[in-house]
Amino acid sequence: MKDINEIIESLDYRREPRGLYEPIGYALSAGGKRVRPRLALLGAQVFGGDEQLVLPAALALEVFHNFTLLHDDVMDKAVVRRGRPTVHVKWDENTAILSGDQMLIEAYKLLSEVKEDKLAGVLRMFNKMATEICEGQQYDVDFEKREDVSIAEYMEMIRLKTSVLLATALQIGAYIAGADEEGQRALYEYGINLGLAFQIQDDLLDCFGDPATFGKAIGGDIREGKKTFMWLTARAKAGAGWSTQGKELAEVLREYEQLGVRKAAEEEIQRLTARALEQLETVPQNGAVAELRGLAAKLAGRTR
Amino acid sequence: MKDINEIIESLDYRREPRGLYEPIGYALSAGGKRVRPRLALLGAQVFGGDEQLVLPAALALEVFHNFTLLHDDVMDKAVVRRGRPTVHVKWDENTAILSGDQMLIEAYKLLSEVKEDKLAGVLRMFNKMATEICEGQQYDVDFEKREDVSIAEYMEMIRLKTSVLLATALQIGAYIAGADEEGQRALYEYGINLGLAFQIQDDLLDCFGDPATFGKAIGGDIREGKKTFMWLTARAKAGAGWSTQGKELAEVLREYEQLGVRKAAEEEIQRLTARALEQLETVPQNGAVAELRGLAAKLAGRTR
Repeated sequence: MKDINEIIESLDYRREPRGLYEPIGYALSAGGKRVRPRLALLGAQVFGGDEQLVLPAALALEVFHNFTLLHDDVMDKAVVRRGRPTVHVKWDENTAILSGDQMLIEAYKLLSEVKEDKLAGVLRMFNKMATEICEGQQYDVDFEKREDVSIAEYMEMIRLKTSVLLATALQIGAYIAGADEEGQRALYEYGINLGLAFQIQDDLLDCFGDPATFGKAIGGDIREGKKTFMWLTARAKAGAGWSTQGKELAEVLREYEQLGVRKAAEEEIQRLTARALEQLETVPQNGAVAELRGLAAKLAGRTR
Repeated sequence: MKDINEIIESLDYRREPRGLYEPIGYALSAGGKRVRPRLALLGAQVFGGDEQLVLPAALALEVFHNFTLLHDDVMDKAVVRRGRPTVHVKWDENTAILSGDQMLIEAYKLLSEVKEDKLAGVLRMFNKMATEICEGQQYDVDFEKREDVSIAEYMEMIRLKTSVLLATALQIGAYIAGADEEGQRALYEYGINLGLAFQIQDDLLDCFGDPATFGKAIGGDIREGKKTFMWLTARAKAGAGWSTQGKELAEVLREYEQLGVRKAAEEEIQRLTARALEQLETVPQNGAVAELRGLAAKLAGRTR
């Protein structure tokens, strides 16, 4: 089986009208870790399924993920994605909207290639996930304007925005491979906890990551005043009057240490990683599960 | 069976987060003729199918249609739709993008309720149609910047942008009702020709409609310099140097009469309507077919 990255890059979007398809090819050719299709394939491998049967859904998940990035970049007015100009910068905003729409349709076209006996089930899981991602994005927008966001609400938002796509990738792989509901649920919950741990690790690294390996400048979230796990935990510990406004980056980081925010984040990542690993105890033990274990362990120790 | 309009308005989008779903309910509550779901139901009735089995797909087609209007309005910077502020005006552009995305996903959720034995087929037809509509929109954008658009290219663009949705609605209805490929094709071709006739009628009415019944000001296309059937036919008849630039509305209309553009449009509408009606000769003759005949006749004589 060819490398998943090669397969994605071989999806041919050199079609007419070029103004519609070129941005899709561009968005998909930027690389990335292809985590979601890999998780779909691993989900099938855990239950001894045929990778080829999972491939259309795996590709649909990756195309869908890149569609969300494309439209998110328009909404966030982001100018760079994976070291290259974003689509709405390289072309224009209308192109990003329309090519993004077509990308979402392309995801459903790939999905429609799933074998008929699994199609309805996969479509249902995919639609639920896609809906939750839009809901998560909306909550993220809503939270920017609210001062009373709780940590529980934040966790639910990142569950929707980040975790369900990882979880659904694993579940769809397992489902196509013939796993029962319990098996699907175990991988789904692994994915949820993995995604949450990943996001909090991201919030932590933004404050205490190694600038040499983190890839972006430290403190971006703090400068933007984003309500991350760090920010919300500091406020929960220091009281509703707490804020980063007017404070230097070094001062905020010192407070995060003193208030025990750094420690709380590290403990939460450990707790979520442990919960992710627990889910793997009930599924068939094989090389694919070992890979999922390695993924969780690597994540917990990641520095970028 | 309840009126289709009532069913659409009863789709409940009073969900959380409200910022995501309220604009969807708003966009769907503006009314309109609900032509596409009606055509899906008629398509089934022609072949004696059960309307209830077609309903999920019929609703999906209407939600999809309104999704395209929502994103088109953002791209066109349109401020009014059916007498009310557009979504990006009433809320903002990011809301229109994200709620529009969710609306497309809602269309696929409705579609996933089609019975399993027809699901793969319906999904394939729907995806093909959705793709063609995005392609049509892109050609429309491309044509604005091109001076050498041919009438054939224009017809292909409006086939993609307008006709395939009507045609696919009829085809899906027929398919779910169990029509064979020939029957599906007949209704599909009826829809294609009906849609083309409708668009050229629209181009004609923009020039020679009765201001009292047309609903909008006469000559809007001319003022915007849009390359309609009228414009392209005038240039084909008068030569590549012909243009509306610097001409009064009355002068352009006089030229359209003198060059025989008005007559050409009227003849094209008659020709396309006749071709639409021809398709209906091979399908079962019943009340639903009579309605489709009436629709074509009404269209050919419409003044608004």
